[in-house]
Amino acid sequence: VEETTLLADELWAQVAPETARRLIAAAVDAFARHGYHGTSTREIAKLAGMSPAGMYVHYGSKADVLYEIAKIGHTDALAAVRHAVAGQEDPAAAVAAFARASATWHAQHHTVAKIIQYELTALPRKRFDEVRRMRRTFELVLEREIRRGLATGVFVVEDVRVASIAVLSLGIDLARWYHDGVDPSPMRLGELYGNLAPKLLQ
Amino acid sequence: VEETTLLADELWAQVAPETARRLIAAAVDAFARHGYHGTSTREIAKLAGMSPAGMYVHYGSKADVLYEIAKIGHTDALAAVRHAVAGQEDPAAAVAAFARASATWHAQHHTVAKIIQYELTALPRKRFDEVRRMRRTFELVLEREIRRGLATGVFVVEDVRVASIAVLSLGIDLARWYHDGVDPSPMRLGELYGNLAPKLLQ
Repeated sequence: VEETTLLADELWAQVAPETARRLIAAAVDAFARHGYHGTSTREIAKLAGMSPAGMYVHYGSKADVLYEIAKIGHTDALAAVRHAVAGQEDPAAAVAAFARASATWHAQHHTVAKIIQYELTALPRKRFDEVRRMRRTFELVLEREIRRGLATGVFVVEDVRVASIAVLSLGIDLARWYHDGVDPSPMRLGELYGNLAPKLLQ
Repeated sequence: VEETTLLADELWAQVAPETARRLIAAAVDAFARHGYHGTSTREIAKLAGMSPAGMYVHYGSKADVLYEIAKIGHTDALAAVRHAVAGQEDPAAAVAAFARASATWHAQHHTVAKIIQYELTALPRKRFDEVRRMRRTFELVLEREIRRGLATGVFVVEDVRVASIAVLSLGIDLARWYHDGVDPSPMRLGELYGNLAPKLLQ
């Protein structure tokens, strides 16, 4: 794997020093190919061009690496949807903006998204609970807008929780099937899903 | 793991002889816990109460076991949606029936669904292509109903493929988050998703 590929996702730009950044990018690549349980710390270190001991300078365990990936990924996805709904007065426009941002994010970051959707149960309890709180915060950004629309009467739903999960699934499930170079682009998918989402609430 | 747990999913009732059935149930359990890449053939055999050599009597490799699981799972899911849409004259009722059957299936069989949604890339090329054809057939059951609704004017969509994927995601994404004992039940989720799906096409 070329170093340029490993460092392709701008999500890791914030990880410092550069050796830690290389480890994270290597782990994302390895987890995506062989799964978390199918990857050893030795393989991550090798892919990052360092010794296993070099890795332990930055991360105490493979689970710590997964936690770092999950923390950065969830923080970025949360920022994306928060920015999207900020200032949207109409609840339907806010839900559309949420769905647009979520779909674009999950398509753009599909490799990281796969890992943080499907491998979280490998985290130790305390870390898992932390990440779960971040996921809950992500959901609450959407639920707040749905409740606002219900209060003003622009939304009518049979079951608020299930309708909310349905909107979330539209974006999150992209992580399962999207891959680089697929048409439509992440931006176009965002537009289309943004138009679809409010329909589920009307 | 108790044998009763291993054999809980009625999907494997058709696998014969009983030793092969035990291996499949053991593999499903192990893959769900540690991922396909994190599970050895030795562990599958041990969990099924037999020697690695005993496993090779039935399956030539771990990939053959995954293929058997994927084949049975996809065949059953396909039968569920085909039965659901059969005889539905109104396209909106047919899409609702598809979404209802798909959601109920993915919640009821969430452990198997997780494996066959997220681990397929581990299959050798030829097997992967076979399973992909089965998945495509599943999608076509839905797309036929959507096209019927477009032809008669009951559906209006911006992008047929993306609207179809959106309906599929509603059911498939249940595999990610559903687990036993969650409220709403698989049947109730089916009802709710059945009511939601046609909205995406109108």
